[in-house]
Order: sequence, then C-alpha cells, then structure tokens
Amino acid sequence: MSNSKIVIIGAGLSGSLLAIRLAQRGFLVELHEKRSDMRKVSMSAGRSINLALSDRGINALRLIGMDEFMLDEAIPMTGRMVHGLDGSLMLQPYSGRADEYINSISRGGLNIGLLDKAESYENITIYFDSECINADLDREICQFKKPDGSIVDVAGDLFVGTDGAGSAIRQSYFNQSARLRFSFSQQYLSAGYKELHIPPTENGGFKIEKNALHIWPRGGFMMIGLPNLDGSFTMTLFTDFEGEYGFNAIKTEEDVENYFTKYFPDAYALMPDLKRDYFINPASSLGTIKCYPWQFNGKFLLLGDAAHAVVPFYGQGMNCSFEDCVVFDQCIDQFGDDWQKVLPAVQELRKINADAIADLAVGNYTEMRDLVADPVFIKKRKLETKLEQMYPDYFSKYSMVTFRADLSYSYAQSRGDKQNEVLMKICSQTDDVDSLDTEKIMEMIRQL
Amino acid sequence: MSNSKIVIIGAGLSGSLLAIRLAQRGFLVELHEKRSDMRKVSMSAGRSINLALSDRGINALRLIGMDEFMLDEAIPMTGRMVHGLDGSLMLQPYSGRADEYINSISRGGLNIGLLDKAESYENITIYFDSECINADLDREICQFKKPDGSIVDVAGDLFVGTDGAGSAIRQSYFNQSARLRFSFSQQYLSAGYKELHIPPTENGGFKIEKNALHIWPRGGFMMIGLPNLDGSFTMTLFTDFEGEYGFNAIKTEEDVENYFTKYFPDAYALMPDLKRDYFINPASSLGTIKCYPWQFNGKFLLLGDAAHAVVPFYGQGMNCSFEDCVVFDQCIDQFGDDWQKVLPAVQELRKINADAIADLAVGNYTEMRDLVADPVFIKKRKLETKLEQMYPDYFSKYSMVTFRADLSYSYAQSRGDKQNEVLMKICSQTDDVDSLDTEKIMEMIRQL
Repeated sequence: MSNSKIVIIGAGLSGSLLAIRLAQRGFLVELHEKRSDMRKVSMSAGRSINLALSDRGINALRLIGMDEFMLDEAIPMTGRMVHGLDGSLMLQPYSGRADEYINSISRGGLNIGLLDKAESYENITIYFDSECINADLDREICQFKKPDGSIVDVAGDLFVGTDGAGSAIRQSYFNQSARLRFSFSQQYLSAGYKELHIPPTENGGFKIEKNALHIWPRGGFMMIGLPNLDGSFTMTLFTDFEGEYGFNAIKTEEDVENYFTKYFPDAYALMPDLKRDYFINPASSLGTIKCYPWQFNGKFLLLGDAAHAVVPFYGQGMNCSFEDCVVFDQCIDQFGDDWQKVLPAVQELRKINADAIADLAVGNYTEMRDLVADPVFIKKRKLETKLEQMYPDYFSKYSMVTFRADLSYSYAQSRGDKQNEVLMKICSQTDDVDSLDTEKIMEMIRQL
Repeated sequence: MSNSKIVIIGAGLSGSLLAIRLAQRGFLVELHEKRSDMRKVSMSAGRSINLALSDRGINALRLIGMDEFMLDEAIPMTGRMVHGLDGSLMLQPYSGRADEYINSISRGGLNIGLLDKAESYENITIYFDSECINADLDREICQFKKPDGSIVDVAGDLFVGTDGAGSAIRQSYFNQSARLRFSFSQQYLSAGYKELHIPPTENGGFKIEKNALHIWPRGGFMMIGLPNLDGSFTMTLFTDFEGEYGFNAIKTEEDVENYFTKYFPDAYALMPDLKRDYFINPASSLGTIKCYPWQFNGKFLLLGDAAHAVVPFYGQGMNCSFEDCVVFDQCIDQFGDDWQKVLPAVQELRKINADAIADLAVGNYTEMRDLVADPVFIKKRKLETKLEQMYPDYFSKYSMVTFRADLSYSYAQSRGDKQNEVLMKICSQTDDVDSLDTEKIMEMIRQL
C-alpha cells in the first residue's frame, strides 16, 4: 500500500508480530534486535519461560494467520487449581463456559515461530546483534551499535520501539523530558519472583493436573505453576524480598528445605532440583512502567512493554502488547500510512487501556495470593461461574479481561469492580450460594 | 556532638540551610554546589524570582536563628487580590486571623543570606563549581567534576542530596533501579509558565496593592503577581502550551498585544516591557517528581526537590523542603548520629507528607485559575474567613497547609478535603452566607 519504510526496534514477541503484519500490508520493514538470533544461541535468562495466551493475544495471531499454528503448541488451562497447605486441591474454573480457557505457551517457542514467519517475507530484513543506543528525534534517525563496535544511523518513515521494559527509544524520550513533557513512572512492588521447576514423570507425563494453572496461595505470598509440553511445570515463587516469608530470609539449603516443607509440602515432594535451582535462579523485581506520550511527531512510537510494562498477575502482558498491534493495524485501516494521524490515534486508543490493565494486574496479586483461599471469594467465584453458565450476558471481571477482546480493559475494569462489589456483598451474607435468586442478582447486575 | 563528616550536594535553599543547622550541631560539613558562587556572578535563569515564605519555612529559619533577618527582607501578602476581566478588584484574605499571612521573598536574596551565614561557620567548607556526577553506592563516595575537568572522589559518613529536581544523587539511584527497587515518577502538566514584569513607579512605589498576591483567574489559565522590595512585581503567566489560550498560539508581538489586551487589560497597561520580556523569557514546563526510597543504606539521603519536586500552586515547594530539614534535625535529636536509624526515620516521616503537598499543589492550580472566580467558591471562602474569625478551632485547608506547621500536610489534605465538601455543599444552597447558622456548621465540622 505504500513505500513507507518502517524501522522496528526489538524483535521480541510484539516486534516480530508487528513486523509480519506490516509486511503483509506491503510496507518495507527493518527489524532490529540487540540480542543474537535466539534460534542459534540459548536464550538469555531473566525472562519468564511460559506465558498465558488468551483471547486478545489470539486475536493478534489470527490477524497474521498464526493462531492455529501457535495454539497447537499450547496447553489449555481451564481453571486455577488451588493447593491447600494440607494438600487439598480445589479447581476454580476461569469461566462457566467450556470454550473459555487460557493457554500455557512457551515464550521462546512463540518468539521463534514469529521470527521464522517474519523471515519468510521478502520485505522484512532482520538485523540481530543490532542494539539501538539512541533515537535522534530531531534528525529522525535511530542509531544502532553493531558487534564490531561501529555506530550506524538508520533512517525511516516510521520508528516503532517494541524494545521492552528497558526501551532505548523510551530512554531517548526521557532524555528530553522537559521538551516533550514526558511523564514517566516506574513503581516496584515489595515482592519479587523466582522461577523453579517440577520435572515430568519418567515417561514424560505430568506430575500434577495438566490442564490447570496451579496456585499455592499462602496469604502475603504464593507459588504458581504452568504446564509445559514436555510434562514439566514452570513454577514461580512470588514473595516479598524482606520479612518473615521473604527471599532474604532464605540463605541456606536448609532454609530452602524448611521453607518449602512448611509452606509448599506437596510441591516440595515433586521438585528434586529445588535446592540447586533456588540458588542458581535469581529473585527478580516486579515493576509497572507507565509513560506518556508514546508517540513523537508522527515519526516515533512506543508499543508493548516499552510503553507499558505490567506485573504478570493478570497474565496479560503479552496479550496487551499483541492487542496494541491489532489496534495499530486498525488505525492503518482508518488513516493509511498518514503516520501523523495513525500514531496519535494509537496512543489515545491504547493509553487508557494500558493504564487499566497495569492497575488490574497489581490488584490481582492480592487476589491470587490471598483471596483465592478466602471463603467469601470462593463463594463469589462459584456464584459467578453459575451466572456465566445460566446467563449469556454475564461475564466476570476476569472473563471480560481475558475472554472478551471486544471489550476494552478500561471497561472491564470499571464494570468488573462494580460487579464485584455487588457480588462480594451478597456472598458475605449467605452460606449457600445455590439458594440465591439468580434472576434478582442479574437484575442488579444489569442495572449497574 | 560527633566527628561525622557530612557531604551535602547542592547549595540551594535547603542545602545551605541544612549545612548551617548541621554545623550548629558540631558536624563537619562539606557543601558542594555545581554552579558558581551566586554572590559573584549573576544568577542563572529558569528559576522563579520570588517565593512565598510561610510558617513551615519560617520554622526552619527560626531553627537556625535567621527568621527575623529574613522576614525583614520579605513583603507580607495578606490575601489574594483577584483581578476581574472588567478591572474589578476583590481581596480574598488568606485567613480570618490577622497574624496569618504569607511573605513574598527573593529567592536569590534568601539563598545569598544563607550562604553568607554558612560561610561564617568554621566547620562548613563550601565548594562552588563542584558538580556531582555520580554517587557510588558501593564505594560510598560521591564523585565531583571540577572546573579543570578533573574528577574528585569525596568520602564521608553521610551524603545528603539537596541538588534539586535534576538531582545527580537521585539519578544514581535511578541507574540502579532494579537493585534498589527504586520507584520514580515525573508527571508534567499540560500547562507551563513564563515570568513577566511590572516595574515600580517612577519614585519606587508599587503600581498595584503591595500586600497581596495578585491573581488574574481566567478559567483554564491565569496570571499571578508577587511584590518585590523595589516596588516591582514578578508576574507569572500560567497556561497550556497547546490550544486557544496556549503559549504556542502566541507567535508575534501583535499576538502578545492581542492576548494581553483581551485577557489582562489592567495588567497590560502596567507592563511596558511586555513584548520584549515575552520573547526573551522562556515558557518552562511544570512537573511533579516523586520517588522512593529516599535513603540508601543509612549513608545516602535525598531531601528537598531532589526527593519531591512539586508544582508551585500551593506556594509550598521551599516551605516543604525547609520542613524536611526541621524533621531531619528532630530525628537527630532522637537518634543522634546513628544514620542507620536517622535516615529511614526521616524518609518514613516525610514521604507521606511530600506526596500530600505534591497532590495538593496540582489540585490548587484548578482552584487558582478557575475557582477563585466561581460564585460558590467565593461564598465558601467568605464563610471560612468568618469561621476562622469566630472559632479558634476552625482552620481552612489553605490555613492548615500554610499556617499550621504543627499539622502535617497529609492531615491537612484529608481533613481539608472533608471540610471543603461540607462547606461547598452548604454554600451551593444559599445566597446569603451571613444568614447561615455557624454553630450548626461548626458542629458538622467538628464531627468530621
């Protein structure tokens, strides 16, 4: 549709997907990645191993014709399997509808699939080991450092920074804060995370329920587990750095053993390499990044984690970033390659929703570590599941965020909060959810 | 009381005041300032020319024995003189109590007074042209760049960064964000400011009321004026950069004339150099900076604008920074030179209050540019003034923030908001404030 040359900085998940979509539209795309080709060298540490792919992300994959290919590599998770301290198990379905579930997928596998596809387009050129060190907003170029140390200026009609939470493009905005009136925030949680591992059974089977996201809520901290195709589970311990349950309280192998036998005895029995893994794998921090503006002068744009890094507790980081690409594509439908119109439109459409999912994700930490074991909350989830089964027009906050890509995050947040208030109040006043008058409840919900 | 050597970075208002106080306590103080001695060269642009000194700031000056000296150089402002578009004047007192007023003082004069005093202490050494470029948190030193280009490492028992909104110490924290879990935000307003000037009369008198803060509220934008000792007024135009009333809409001298004759005709007549000043003086941005933690390891501490830059609409930037120094001093009373205890205590006592005044200041922009010309708000201010005259236990939000240094900013904010809600509702329902039952109102207020 145009001879526009688009330079994408960062060949992670959203950068690769965006490159494919823009190539499909006929643009000339340069895709620069600071790391080496992950298909040739082992991936660098510090990123989550698997992710929960849900409807907003699937929508984006469908846009580029890769949804079925990717879902073949994913494991459906139909609910949260809550592990009690006493070894009890309770499955809390994500939805009352059978076709609404999330999918555990390998970050590396997904990224490699996207890179392979990107490489099949003649109008995409991928540059690995090409690190953006500066976006020169006045000269309208980006500067890349090459393996031999040389600095190369790259021109283009449009620069999209999908270079993640540590974005070089965003840093270039930040360096001109007063001029751009560049608002920025990074907010760390007191909690961090550490990845651990449950290996498969000897014959490659799953040691615990395959089709669930496992949670060990412990009030103030928690562990979760997501299934991998090889039968293993990637476990993540989320806890504060400081304090009685904190990472900093665990210093020796004996501390590890005491901690896990005390708080996660059923999982401990399944983690033979725990003591080794615990001290090899880092405890990483968790933070939210927000900023504004995302675009400069119809020439530069931040998307994905570069514009809005979120904590992982709603499983929406990748899904939100992929949805950015869908909205970008819709704005091209509307404005063509008139970037002076496309970029501000993308920014206004997405900023409010990125803020919403960022705040939802912080709030969901409390829900996951504390509430999923709370009696009133359990009743509320039971009631919601029932409402979703009985009423086609009922959707929980979780469902709206996760399964209703036709609703915005900000709508899901405001409506979801109102619904929760009503339902938590009802559930706090009854012991028997099944005896409730669902018609009357739905009347209240519909009036919100 | 100790041999501790304290290195203070930044010899602005709070750095100089803090140096004096710590010297009075017997500490060895090194005070580093990146600029040249302002007493020898003309002051750099880009900073406000005069400030509103009020009780929290006066408290700090009293602590070092300089309150009377400084107040002699200040001009009392007893209220807001509101200039209508039709040239009408309305004085809105800041308080119903005669002894509660704010003071217009020269930033440069105040800073010079503090530097002169600091220099009189044998245990303070001031280094000008000494720019901190890095706080090395591991080696526990600060690095300073000297005029000859050399880099000097400076050791100390404690480093206090009072180096303003662009703090080098804060930047060193930021550079280690993940390790420190350093939360940080900078939020720009869509509005900026430009300083202008009303000269004195030919015989050195004041062309408009001397003892007031003049304000031209225009709904969405405004101009204010503060008196100077020489009879002049420093005027500040606050407006958006973009839009019909924005700075960017004013491009030529004719635009300036049209803008000011349309919106500020009475002031325009008093500003002979307006067209020259307008294009010489920059339109600067306005932002709020928040961060956490302020201290690292009992060794480094941010104070003043370095920790919490606020917008100027509550006239509390300097007062808040001076109050930081008072609280720091109180923590030394409690913990001596045990910095491992002093620094966390200062941080916890001040963070919540710095956040409160930052948010109050943003909110006050709306009040100043819009509300002071709003009929209900005018009635409310009249009622509050009356309540302050009649009841020793009534204090408006403004009074609590400005005149009640014994109350914290966060208390003033929460109580003030509740009071305002009650009083605005009452005033929206009456045309005659004088007919209201003040006893009944005070009963409601006391129950909040």
